[in-house]
Amino acid sequence: MEHYNWLLSLCVILMSTKIFSIISRRAQLPQVVGALMAGLFFGPAVLGAITLHSFGTQFCLMPSELLNRLAELGVIVIMFTAGMETNLDELKASGKVGFVVAMSGVLVPLGMGMGLMYIFDDNVTFASAIFVGAVLTATSVSITVETLKELGKMSTKAGNTILAAALIDDILGLICLTVITGIAGGDVNITIVFMKIICFFVFIAVVGYIYHKYMVWSDEIQAQRNLRRYPVMGFAFCLFMAWASEALFGVADIIGAFAAGMIIAMAPKGQYIASKFETMAYLLLTPIFFANIGLGVTLPKMSLNLVLFTLALVIVSVFSKLGGCGIGARLCGFSNQQSYQVGLGMVCRGEVALIVAEKGMEMNLISEQYLGPIIIMIIVCTIITPIVLKGAFKGQEDVAGDTMFEDKFMLEEQTDEIEEDIFRRRLLLSTRTQE
Amino acid sequence: MEHYNWLLSLCVILMSTKIFSIISRRAQLPQVVGALMAGLFFGPAVLGAITLHSFGTQFCLMPSELLNRLAELGVIVIMFTAGMETNLDELKASGKVGFVVAMSGVLVPLGMGMGLMYIFDDNVTFASAIFVGAVLTATSVSITVETLKELGKMSTKAGNTILAAALIDDILGLICLTVITGIAGGDVNITIVFMKIICFFVFIAVVGYIYHKYMVWSDEIQAQRNLRRYPVMGFAFCLFMAWASEALFGVADIIGAFAAGMIIAMAPKGQYIASKFETMAYLLLTPIFFANIGLGVTLPKMSLNLVLFTLALVIVSVFSKLGGCGIGARLCGFSNQQSYQVGLGMVCRGEVALIVAEKGMEMNLISEQYLGPIIIMIIVCTIITPIVLKGAFKGQEDVAGDTMFEDKFMLEEQTDEIEEDIFRRRLLLSTRTQE
Repeated sequence: MEHYNWLLSLCVILMSTKIFSIISRRAQLPQVVGALMAGLFFGPAVLGAITLHSFGTQFCLMPSELLNRLAELGVIVIMFTAGMETNLDELKASGKVGFVVAMSGVLVPLGMGMGLMYIFDDNVTFASAIFVGAVLTATSVSITVETLKELGKMSTKAGNTILAAALIDDILGLICLTVITGIAGGDVNITIVFMKIICFFVFIAVVGYIYHKYMVWSDEIQAQRNLRRYPVMGFAFCLFMAWASEALFGVADIIGAFAAGMIIAMAPKGQYIASKFETMAYLLLTPIFFANIGLGVTLPKMSLNLVLFTLALVIVSVFSKLGGCGIGARLCGFSNQQSYQVGLGMVCRGEVALIVAEKGMEMNLISEQYLGPIIIMIIVCTIITPIVLKGAFKGQEDVAGDTMFEDKFMLEEQTDEIEEDIFRRRLLLSTRTQE
Repeated sequence: MEHYNWLLSLCVILMSTKIFSIISRRAQLPQVVGALMAGLFFGPAVLGAITLHSFGTQFCLMPSELLNRLAELGVIVIMFTAGMETNLDELKASGKVGFVVAMSGVLVPLGMGMGLMYIFDDNVTFASAIFVGAVLTATSVSITVETLKELGKMSTKAGNTILAAALIDDILGLICLTVITGIAGGDVNITIVFMKIICFFVFIAVVGYIYHKYMVWSDEIQAQRNLRRYPVMGFAFCLFMAWASEALFGVADIIGAFAAGMIIAMAPKGQYIASKFETMAYLLLTPIFFANIGLGVTLPKMSLNLVLFTLALVIVSVFSKLGGCGIGARLCGFSNQQSYQVGLGMVCRGEVALIVAEKGMEMNLISEQYLGPIIIMIIVCTIITPIVLKGAFKGQEDVAGDTMFEDKFMLEEQTDEIEEDIFRRRLLLSTRTQE
C-alpha cells in the first residue's frame, strides 16, 4: 500500500493548492499565496504539528525525492516561460527611467538585506549575507501587474514605469544570482569565476545565434505539418541549457532555462512553442513547486530570535523597495505622489524570491530556519501591496483599465471555448467513420 | 556536476524519442516504435553494450527512481486520456459483432500465450503464465486506426468491425488485468479477491454517479470564468482513483485512471478537461514512459532459449490474433476475405501490452528477461501489420478515406494556428499598456 502513496500525495497537493488558490483569489490575493498556504497547511508546520500534538504521530505530506525533482522541473519551466515572455525590444524601449528605478530598487534591498544578516546571524559569511540580500531584490512582475490591472491603473505614468522597472529588475536579479552562485560555488579564484560567467554569456550568445539561424533555415525549407516537434525540441533545448549552466559554467540552472526561453521566443515558431507550456505548468509542475516550498517549513522550530528576524525582514523588505524605487523615480523627475506609487508597486515579492531562497538552501548558504521568515515576508508583501496601492491611487481618474481587464477575460473565455470545440471536432473526426 | 545529470537525461530522452519517432514516421511506422527504439539505443542494450565493449565502462542512460515515477505517471495519464476518449454509447451501438470478434480475439491469444509459457519456462506458475497471455490480448486501438486511415479503409465493413472490436478488446483486456492482479496480489482467498473486484466496480459506479451529479449541479450554479480549476481537479480525481484502486481494492492503478477518464468524459466540462491533457502527455510524460521501457532492456543477456522464445512469441502473437478474430468474424457471417482483413487489423500491439508487461514485472510475475522478447514482438507486429494489410485490402475501392485524413490534418493545422494566434493576443494584451 505504501508503494502507491505518492499518487495520493500528488492528488492532495493538486487539490489543496487549487482550493487554497481559489480562496485566496476570493480574498483578492494573488494565487501564489494560496498555493504556499496549502503546502504550509498539509506539511509539518500545521497538520504535522496538530497530529503530533493530538495523536503522538505526524500525519502530513513530506517533501520526497520525487516531489523535490518535480519542483525543480517546475521552477525550470516557470523560468523558461518567463524567458519566453520577456521581450528584448520592449526592454530597450522602456529606457532610462525604468533602468534607474530598477537599479536603485535592487541595490537598496540588497544592501539592507545584507545588513540585516550581519545584525542577526552570528555565523554570517559574506556569501550567505549577499544571498539573503538577493532574495529581497526581485519584484514579482506577475503579482505587480495583476494588482495594477485589478486597480485599473496600468496605463498611468507610474504604472508604465513599474512594469518596465519590474522587468529589468528581474534580469538584474538574475545577473546578481549568476555572480553570487559563481562566487559561492566552491571556486576560490574570483578571476576564474568571472571568466566562467563571461564564457557563459558568450555561450548563450553563440547558442542563441545558432538556434536562431537554424530555425530560420528550418522554417523556410520544412512543411508546416507535424508542429509537435517544436515544443518537444524546445523543451529539450531548455533542459540542455539548464544542465549546461550548472555543469559547464557553475551558473544556476534557472538562468540557463530563462536564457533558453528568450532565445526561443525570438526565433521563428517561438510564439507557438511558448503557447504550449502553460497547461503543463498549471496542471502539474507549478502547484508542486509552490506546495513543496510550503512543505519544507517547520514553524515549531522558531526561536524568539527568529521571530524578531522575521519582523525585521518584513519591515526591511517593504521599506527597502519602497525607498529604493521611490528615490530612483524621484531622481528621474517624478512627483512625490508618483514616486510613492512606483515604490509601493514594486514591493510585491513572489516566485523569484522563493527560487533564490531555494537555490541558497541547496548550496548551504541559507540556513533552513530562514525559509519560514522568507515565506512570511512574501505573504505579507503580497497581502499589503494591493491594499496600500488602492489608497495611493485614490482620486486619480481611471484610464480604461477596467475595459482592458474585461478584454482579457473575454479573450480567455473565447480561447477556452475554441479549444473545447477543437477537441470535440477532433474526437468526432476520429470516430465519425463508425457511422 | 552529477547532481544535475538528470536534466541532461531528460533532455536526451525528449530529443531522442522525438528524432526516432520522426524517423519511424518517415518509414511509415507508428511513432511508438521510434520511441521504444530510442530507449533501446540509449540504454544498456545498445549504447551501454558498445561503450562497455570499447571503453570498458558503460556510458548510457539508466532507469532511475525519477524516470520510473514519471513513467508511472505517464502511463496513468495515457490510460486517463484513453478513458476520456472511450464513448460508452458508441460501444453499445457497435453491438454483437464487435463483441464476438473481441471476445474470441482475447481468449485465443490468452490461451496460446499461457501454453507458450508452459512449454518454455520450467519455473512457470499459473499466475505468471496467465500474465504473459494477458500481454498478448490487447490490440492497440491507436495503431490499428492510424494504419487503416493511412490505407483509406476506415469506412469498410471490416474497418468498422476492427474499430469496434479494438475498443471492446481494450476493456476486456483491462477486466482481465483487474482479475489477474487481484488473484496474484497476494490474497490467497479467491472469494475475497472477487468480492474486492465487485466492490471496486460498485465503488466506480457510486463515485461516478456522485461526480456526475456534482458537475451538473456546479455547472448550473457557477459562472463560466476560471475554467482552469476543472482540469486540475480532474487530474486530482484521476490520481485519487488510481491510488484508491491499488490501495483499497488491490486493482491496478491504471484501471482506476481509465475509469476516472470515462467518468469525467461523460459529465459536464468533460470535453474541456480532456482537451487539456494532450500537451502535457506529449511534452513530458509519454516520451519518458516509452523510453524508460526501452532503457530497461538488456539484450546481451539473451540465451538461445530466449531467442527461441522470442521467435515463438512473435509467431503466436500474430497467428493467435489473426485466427481468434478471424474466426469470430467468420462466425458472424463475414466472407473469408473480410474475416482475414479483420484478423489482420487486430494484430497490432502497443502501449497496453507494454503496460501489462510492466505491471507483471512490478508484481514479480513476469521475469525481466521476457521484456526484450515482448518489445521485439510489439515492434514486429506493428511493422508487419501495415505492410500485410495493404495487400489484404488490394482491389477494394476507396471509401473517401483519404479526404478524411486530409480533413484531420487540415483541422490540426488550423488548431495550431489558432492556438498560436491566441497566445500572441494574450501576450499583446498583457503588454499593450506600455505603449
